[in-house]
Amino acid sequence: MINIALDAFGGDHSPTEPVKGAILAVKEYPISVTLVGDESQIRDLLNQYSEYPKEKISIVHASEVVGMAESPSKSFRQKKDSSIQVGLNLVRDKKCHGFVSAGNTGAVLAASTLVLGRSPHVERPGLAAVIPSLKSHFILLDVGSNVDCKPIHLIQFALMGTRFSKAIMGIENPKIGLLNIGEERDKGNQLTLETHQLFETLNLNFIGNVESREILMGVADVVVCDGFMGNGLIKFGEGITSIFTSFFKEEAKHSLMSLLGLMLLKPAFKRFRKKFDYDEYGGAHLLGVNGVSVVAHGRARDVAIKNAIRIAYKASEERIVDKISSSISDNLQFQAK
Amino acid sequence: MINIALDAFGGDHSPTEPVKGAILAVKEYPISVTLVGDESQIRDLLNQYSEYPKEKISIVHASEVVGMAESPSKSFRQKKDSSIQVGLNLVRDKKCHGFVSAGNTGAVLAASTLVLGRSPHVERPGLAAVIPSLKSHFILLDVGSNVDCKPIHLIQFALMGTRFSKAIMGIENPKIGLLNIGEERDKGNQLTLETHQLFETLNLNFIGNVESREILMGVADVVVCDGFMGNGLIKFGEGITSIFTSFFKEEAKHSLMSLLGLMLLKPAFKRFRKKFDYDEYGGAHLLGVNGVSVVAHGRARDVAIKNAIRIAYKASEERIVDKISSSISDNLQFQAK
Repeated sequence: MINIALDAFGGDHSPTEPVKGAILAVKEYPISVTLVGDESQIRDLLNQYSEYPKEKISIVHASEVVGMAESPSKSFRQKKDSSIQVGLNLVRDKKCHGFVSAGNTGAVLAASTLVLGRSPHVERPGLAAVIPSLKSHFILLDVGSNVDCKPIHLIQFALMGTRFSKAIMGIENPKIGLLNIGEERDKGNQLTLETHQLFETLNLNFIGNVESREILMGVADVVVCDGFMGNGLIKFGEGITSIFTSFFKEEAKHSLMSLLGLMLLKPAFKRFRKKFDYDEYGGAHLLGVNGVSVVAHGRARDVAIKNAIRIAYKASEERIVDKISSSISDNLQFQAK
Repeated sequence: MINIALDAFGGDHSPTEPVKGAILAVKEYPISVTLVGDESQIRDLLNQYSEYPKEKISIVHASEVVGMAESPSKSFRQKKDSSIQVGLNLVRDKKCHGFVSAGNTGAVLAASTLVLGRSPHVERPGLAAVIPSLKSHFILLDVGSNVDCKPIHLIQFALMGTRFSKAIMGIENPKIGLLNIGEERDKGNQLTLETHQLFETLNLNFIGNVESREILMGVADVVVCDGFMGNGLIKFGEGITSIFTSFFKEEAKHSLMSLLGLMLLKPAFKRFRKKFDYDEYGGAHLLGVNGVSVVAHGRARDVAIKNAIRIAYKASEERIVDKISSSISDNLQFQAK
């Protein structure tokens, strides 16, 4: 049975929400979960629940916690017994199949690369987010692991994203798009211009440049960009959602008509959130390391944690690490170009 | 009286909407407008309206039109009598105070720099958009004029944006933010790390890094970034708005409750659009060239065109070109660093 290590002390609502998320996950999926963190606190929390398959949840003690604002490199050196490192060690030592954390993203990314190591020939691991679109979903990467990229990194992101899309989203032949500021091949900055040229020499399902305006319509299944852009877009999306919410909360206070309208639209808003809230899709998966590592949003609550566990479970079951590794190796001749 | 040259043949709805926008503008502001483009077509359109001060609108003929997808450099060389070049020539020759176009953005930017020339010591002109925030508005630049930037460009964008914010938005001491993927000073890509360090050596009202998540809350008055990022964010915002609209249109078809709710919320949505639709704020102003040049959205209709004319009028009245020029000169000692 697939066993996922979950950082019980990562995220704004830890350890409560991770523990609740683990319980939801073992009820729903044919997996077991190893909770990593202060054993007595975790046990106290677990004791509050009775209706779950107890044999499917175990605890591995970790005495330290990495704070949300701590330096990734410093915390890695100084907190060897943190829930992040202990959890990743379990994956490295094949005691667990994958790791999930809603903790300090930078710390999880750094520790994942350092503990698990990069897959052979992978230049840079890429953080892949599953983003909802009008049609269905697409993979956006990198969303914050590599802020300065070279064309070869973006090409490898495309290869890794394609494998991920096939394995996790079940898409037969994913369409790859290069995030750019214009559709024409001569549009873009130096990085995207060079990357576009490189894509054209390769035998991939590359559909060309895609603009940020259209990615949410579902024009591509795998959208590649550098981590500065990807991270900026995701956070801008959060910003728009939050001003939208603020605006309509104020409206409801000042207009009875708006209040009534909002009440009637409540189910529609709920459906909208369910469809477009990317948290719901389980966070971001670090591709290109020797093991499954999934980062959930710091604000993740039980359902989002459960969904992150689902991604790690699916990635483990589908042997995504092996598939990515062979995809990168198979394409080495192109990458030499 | 301030006279603005308006490209009557730029944009998806030209020449009708530009002509209507010009009429709205001369009715509302103490300015005159020179419509540039095919004289007989413009005259035919103007003849459909009677209720406006006719002495405030004139026509300068231009026989060519630059298409929305044409190459900026090629169209500049081959279409010397385009409405874009003829309009910009009027500004260069001091016959008009400023130029406004909803046409091919790349072509307007290239022609503005080539016809008007860069202001002394300006390394790269920057395209500044006025973006609505929860508090009020802020200036985002660059939004597409320079896709590959160096730190000095971002510093100059900050200087120019500050001047613009003071003159056009009436903000006394604008707060400058550096768009980045984390608030800490050690976060970012090479460009933002170096720019942050440079900012710290300067005597500007620099508040540090700002994240795309928070800019719409109004944390800074001037937000600087490279044009790849700025353009990507603006277009992503458009994308989010459009999926939101699509979703709720579908909802209204399938649920009577949602339809009723949307009807009740119509005034609130209208207020939201009025507050947050950045088109309403008149497009983007190219800062750092020897003349006022404003680019409206290709989809701009009469009101958006009128607002773009307003920006050009205010910028002319406030002598923004001179102010930017002296601000850049005053800060030359810093920029040598």
